[in-house]
Amino acid sequence: MVTTVVDARAVADGLAATAVADRLAACAQVGGPVDSTYRWRGEVETATEWSVQFKTAPDRVAALVDRIRADHPYDVPEILVSRGVECGDPAYAAWVRENTRV
Amino acid sequence: MVTTVVDARAVADGLAATAVADRLAACAQVGGPVDSTYRWRGEVETATEWSVQFKTAPDRVAALVDRIRADHPYDVPEILVSRGVECGDPAYAAWVRENTRV
Amino acid sequence: MVTTVVDARAVADGLAATAVADRLAACAQVGGPVDSTYRWRGEVETATEWSVQFKTAPDRVAALVDRIRADHPYDVPEILVSRGVECGDPAYAAWVRENTRV
Repeated sequence: MVTTVVDARAVADGLAATAVADRLAACAQVGGPVDSTYRWRGEVETATEWSVQFKTAPDRVAALVDRIRADHPYDVPEILVSRGVECGDPAYAAWVRENTRV
Repeated sequence: MVTTVVDARAVADGLAATAVADRLAACAQVGGPVDSTYRWRGEVETATEWSVQFKTAPDRVAALVDRIRADHPYDVPEILVSRGVECGDPAYAAWVRENTRV
Repeated sequence: MVTTVVDARAVADGLAATAVADRLAACAQVGGPVDSTYRWRGEVETATEWSVQFKTAPDRVAALVDRIRADHPYDVPEILVSRGVECGDPAYAAWVRENTRV
């Protein structure tokens, strides 16, 4: 599973659509808003952001991350890769794999 | 931790209530909505879904997953099992364990 | 990554602000509400909660967890530590590290 956040809902929707269209993920879910507090160039700032959670096959994680980095508007985007997430239904894992082949 | 998503809020609430009632989870949290984009039978589709996040003991994960699969209305449900999630408070881990015994 | 939930939005905001102000996390995101179902002293109860997701460096997890436990209003707070979450962008990992030094 790969997740990111971005400060515009339309951009989040675009990252989700692109990943599925290009078979970099079988599914992408846009959620939020969340209110983020962070330190940037020494100052504490806040922003409203939307999250995108991508479901992809292990062998497609690197390509998906590269694509998110290329398309993301932030200089230093939060892109998190969660290892150790297993599918409870084997059919779901097969579906993810099938829909991330090119 | 175990999570799923489903396209009806009432079904999400039902999955949460059943898991706690039957001591398959100590806690279940329903969140959302999220907007999902996915490929199904060759076409890109979208749906609004709600998430359910279950907190259970390691020895109850298999029974919980079986129950979600049985009750879930999808043919191929997304049921994710996150390994490597640790409790920061030992009392919380003990509470989860205590409330998932039958 | 460290997460918690609490039943008051203002408390969630306070946990987020404190963690970033004290450099225990580089970023904290408040989301929700979620509807929680849980068993407490033998009875099934429900509550509306807000989540806080903290991004910190591995060597700051213990201090962050201690601080959340100290500030959290629950007797038995849910504080989850997700191991195995990797940064897809090396610059982000460096930013998290830089902003969690004291």
